[in-house]
Amino acid sequence: MALAIPPAELDAANQAYFDKCVEKIGFVPNVLQAYTLDMAKLNAFAGMYNDLMLAPSGLSKLEREMIAVVVSSINRCYYCLTAHGAAVRQLSGDPILGEQMVMNYRAARLDPRRRAMLDFAAKLTESPHAVEEEDREGLRRVGFSERDIWDIGAVVGFFNMSNRIASATDMRPNEEYHAQARTPKA
Amino acid sequence: MALAIPPAELDAANQAYFDKCVEKIGFVPNVLQAYTLDMAKLNAFAGMYNDLMLAPSGLSKLEREMIAVVVSSINRCYYCLTAHGAAVRQLSGDPILGEQMVMNYRAARLDPRRRAMLDFAAKLTESPHAVEEEDREGLRRVGFSERDIWDIGAVVGFFNMSNRIASATDMRPNEEYHAQARTPKA
Amino acid sequence: MALAIPPAELDAANQAYFDKCVEKIGFVPNVLQAYTLDMAKLNAFAGMYNDLMLAPSGLSKLEREMIAVVVSSINRCYYCLTAHGAAVRQLSGDPILGEQMVMNYRAARLDPRRRAMLDFAAKLTESPHAVEEEDREGLRRVGFSERDIWDIGAVVGFFNMSNRIASATDMRPNEEYHAQARTPKA
Amino acid sequence: MALAIPPAELDAANQAYFDKCVEKIGFVPNVLQAYTLDMAKLNAFAGMYNDLMLAPSGLSKLEREMIAVVVSSINRCYYCLTAHGAAVRQLSGDPILGEQMVMNYRAARLDPRRRAMLDFAAKLTESPHAVEEEDREGLRRVGFSERDIWDIGAVVGFFNMSNRIASATDMRPNEEYHAQARTPKA
Amino acid sequence: MALAIPPAELDAANQAYFDKCVEKIGFVPNVLQAYTLDMAKLNAFAGMYNDLMLAPSGLSKLEREMIAVVVSSINRCYYCLTAHGAAVRQLSGDPILGEQMVMNYRAARLDPRRRAMLDFAAKLTESPHAVEEEDREGLRRVGFSERDIWDIGAVVGFFNMSNRIASATDMRPNEEYHAQARTPKA
Amino acid sequence: MALAIPPAELDAANQAYFDKCVEKIGFVPNVLQAYTLDMAKLNAFAGMYNDLMLAPSGLSKLEREMIAVVVSSINRCYYCLTAHGAAVRQLSGDPILGEQMVMNYRAARLDPRRRAMLDFAAKLTESPHAVEEEDREGLRRVGFSERDIWDIGAVVGFFNMSNRIASATDMRPNEEYHAQARTPKA
Repeated sequence: MALAIPPAELDAANQAYFDKCVEKIGFVPNVLQAYTLDMAKLNAFAGMYNDLMLAPSGLSKLEREMIAVVVSSINRCYYCLTAHGAAVRQLSGDPILGEQMVMNYRAARLDPRRRAMLDFAAKLTESPHAVEEEDREGLRRVGFSERDIWDIGAVVGFFNMSNRIASATDMRPNEEYHAQARTPKA
Repeated sequence: MALAIPPAELDAANQAYFDKCVEKIGFVPNVLQAYTLDMAKLNAFAGMYNDLMLAPSGLSKLEREMIAVVVSSINRCYYCLTAHGAAVRQLSGDPILGEQMVMNYRAARLDPRRRAMLDFAAKLTESPHAVEEEDREGLRRVGFSERDIWDIGAVVGFFNMSNRIASATDMRPNEEYHAQARTPKA
Repeated sequence: MALAIPPAELDAANQAYFDKCVEKIGFVPNVLQAYTLDMAKLNAFAGMYNDLMLAPSGLSKLEREMIAVVVSSINRCYYCLTAHGAAVRQLSGDPILGEQMVMNYRAARLDPRRRAMLDFAAKLTESPHAVEEEDREGLRRVGFSERDIWDIGAVVGFFNMSNRIASATDMRPNEEYHAQARTPKA
Repeated sequence: MALAIPPAELDAANQAYFDKCVEKIGFVPNVLQAYTLDMAKLNAFAGMYNDLMLAPSGLSKLEREMIAVVVSSINRCYYCLTAHGAAVRQLSGDPILGEQMVMNYRAARLDPRRRAMLDFAAKLTESPHAVEEEDREGLRRVGFSERDIWDIGAVVGFFNMSNRIASATDMRPNEEYHAQARTPKA
Repeated sequence: MALAIPPAELDAANQAYFDKCVEKIGFVPNVLQAYTLDMAKLNAFAGMYNDLMLAPSGLSKLEREMIAVVVSSINRCYYCLTAHGAAVRQLSGDPILGEQMVMNYRAARLDPRRRAMLDFAAKLTESPHAVEEEDREGLRRVGFSERDIWDIGAVVGFFNMSNRIASATDMRPNEEYHAQARTPKA
Repeated sequence: MALAIPPAELDAANQAYFDKCVEKIGFVPNVLQAYTLDMAKLNAFAGMYNDLMLAPSGLSKLEREMIAVVVSSINRCYYCLTAHGAAVRQLSGDPILGEQMVMNYRAARLDPRRRAMLDFAAKLTESPHAVEEEDREGLRRVGFSERDIWDIGAVVGFFNMSNRIASATDMRPNEEYHAQARTPKA
């Protein structure tokens, strides 16, 4: 059962943000609802999230979502697998790719760049203490820049955080995600 | 070797923040230096960090630092163990407590509230997928409120993120931390 | 890449079986195609599978499929998660339940009988050497008979086998499964 | 304590099979006794087992038994280690080899073919999700054919099943196995 | 291949010790042969070993050997499983008990005292950092004294040492152990 | 709570040893106090310890202490991390090196010889069953002799023992260690 914490009053900026969510995707993601317990925390979370997943980067938005799902698969996070699995299906137009990220990314036929990116994400999630220079070298060899490596690390880190906040608080995904983008895009 | 990413120009607000760090603790923590690659990312990180560790909460600042060290001990993060181990020594005035958090928190003689808090932090770090209602019940039984549980989850999550960003980028702690607060406070 | 093994000639009984598959579900499951390398092996596999999943049992067909998915989730088997995840969605009429079995069965709101059944399945998959009388007692307490316990063990065992055969041979699921039963049954 | 399930009546074919067991090895293996709860299940199990372990294959019978013991050693299955440890001693005429398969196959001085076969078996048992094309390539390099790889995967899979059925039901090996083939064959 | 270290000259006391080994058991155990590289190390090792396994204790010699085998089973040490498995068979007169200690001690029908002793040994071997007062309480409840707990800890510790020295140096057991005590004592 | 075992009377040789401890380091290490329960055990332990850590060897005393700390870090042994962490700080004159051994030795900038030594120590601690000839070859390649490999294995083994004895008996380090050698030697 989710934590019983009364929401604070939504300030104007966040009310506008929530309205925009409803307008664009039809609902306010439950993670944002959960953060209404405190405007400062909502701002900090949404600010970091939006910068990380939407700001310009050497990683495409799809690649960032692929990392999100692979991390969440290792941590078996129901909330994040549901929400970001849908995002991979949507951004790729390939529902099977979304399923593979959820189930076992090694089953996907990926190009060497994406495979190296996801292998790094998996190792950084499972044994961060063992990540060393030769792991970074592996990313450089397939073309990632220094800044790209930062961005990969930051996305891996972020979902290792959000997976645990979701588990700690029994956060549940909006049901709408499940049916989204189940048909391949032509 | 740390990532070779040129820093962006520090904006006025962050310049003031850095100046204040030097004034108060004698140096700018290397994690903040690392984030100077991008002002938006620096703001997002520092904003979340300061809210989490310094804003009012049912958890004392020391308790939040104890969680930080226990999480970092499981993930064996050299940066965070060094910086936050120093913080536990400082805030508690008890250098031995700081060492115990780094080495094995089970060796410390803790009251049931803090022990339950750290057991939850350890489980949420090691097997987030297995955290369930009975784990939250364990926290409630020793007196934590719903909001306290959120805060515990959020601190555990945050250091599971920062441990991985530090590992991914080979971030190294300022040497000053090692000698700090090695003498018990009377 | 799947193993390059030429199929044997399908005998009459198996030709009829395959025709029936096409008639009923529109395709021959790839696992059966793979077993055409040897009629004796195809018969042994299909015989055991059909007895296990379809013969009368104290476990419903849905419950057997739920076990199949939970085992395959622990072993991260792309083939079995895809095929049996679809079966859970279909038999339950509840697409969300199917997703939860794939992602983390602990996130589903299950009655105590099914929860105990899946906890036993997970432990038997992850640490078979530690399953003892008190684990069987846990099943008896929620109403399972001796024979039911056998059936649970047999289904868990079977998917621990098939998960590994699929991984060893890079078996890939028919694409049709992904879109099946994505809409809740009224 | 083994499950208390009354046996069904043995049909004529299985009665003959059991009589032959007594004639050839002096007893009916307890796993077959356990399966007398249901003739269809006995037939399915014995059919698959006999095909797998006795039918023509690029793997010798000894090699299939070596795999059986290595898998059962990882899963610490008392039943299968006892019964198949005896089989390795018998088929090889080398009691020490049997002990090494039970204790730690890495301690045996094996030729590269058998070592690669057992390394694959161990990985497929411990982390089936991580078995990929390069693991199959390793088998091809020491001379295994595509069909041999299938057979290795099938034997590994089978004992990952039977280990778990034995654990789930507390199946106990016939005591006769322990003393069998303890003297090296000249 | 064992380490190529030339033996030192055996001093008189150790020559007598070795002669006594040959007289009593027919051979000098290979671990002692290995330690002839240095008389001081041989004395230290044999002194500690003989005190631990043979001196008066609340634990019987058989119980100490049972612990030795359970520890060695977790660490999969071929040398120690072979030598001490033989000792359990010999001291108990029960070859099946010896096999169960090697394969999975949970399969043995033990009284609560011995079961608690071996559960403690297993936990102390696998996760020493998690052994706490309640584990010691479990031993006290089945009748172990403070000194018995020390002795259990010391035997568990010793074999966690010797298992690793054997692995590090590829130490191989004398072949004579394998055939010893395979017949139940009347 | 430490075990309640009354000490035996200290014999003359050990009284002299303890007096010398007080003279040289200001206190008797608690591990020696604990062993006063039995003079034979005290002699065996101290004899092995002093030979191992102080006798001539291809490994420097500092290197042996580095191994001690890395092993104790994996086993999270509060006693040994405290006592031997201090020894690394003292012998190296480099407090940061001591902290790195406690926290994650991979964070230290080590020469290839020491890195190989500690990688071997970590593997031998975590998975002794998987240490094989190629691991020994790795040590030879960076210049270790056969006898050095023995010594590495013996030190790794010893601390895997002492870590477990400390955990089993809740042994606590003398508080004096914490403050020792916190200032870098010029």
